[in-house]
Amino acid sequence: HSLDVKGRCICADKGVNKVSRKAIEKVEIILPSPSCKRLEIVVTMRGAGQKCLNPGSRFTKKYILTCLKNWRLN
Amino acid sequence: HSLDVKGRCICADKGVNKVSRKAIEKVEIILPSPSCKRLEIVVTMRGAGQKCLNPGSRFTKKYILTCLKNWRLN
Repeated sequence: HSLDVKGRCICADKGVNKVSRKAIEKVEIILPSPSCKRLEIVVTMRGAGQKCLNPGSRFTKKYILTCLKNWRLN
Repeated sequence: HSLDVKGRCICADKGVNKVSRKAIEKVEIILPSPSCKRLEIVVTMRGAGQKCLNPGSRFTKKYILTCLKNWRLN
């Protein structure tokens, strides 16, 4: 699940289904764009560089939506 | 509304309230993290580099939530 910029997408494949929350340093959600038709989620892990997170996995949807819900409420 | 990495946040202020949708090339949502307590939205504009978009503005919430709803449905 390396970060290998294929065409203009950042993630070469759909990415990992789950990561350890405690090790997450930063989460970037990149919306579909002219240069990459897929929504991509790139997670920076403490001491382990960047990984692609599968936007379709249960973990991702639950984790990301919780974060965004908090954002929408304030 | 320049991109001036203050401490570890990317956006120096809350950013612009609105941008022209047609000129948006890429949207990155950066979730709050240990290094930056704020949710940040960085928009790459065609031919105009990057701008910070105010996460609290009506435009942002409407635009981003529409994109994310499409993601959640598939």
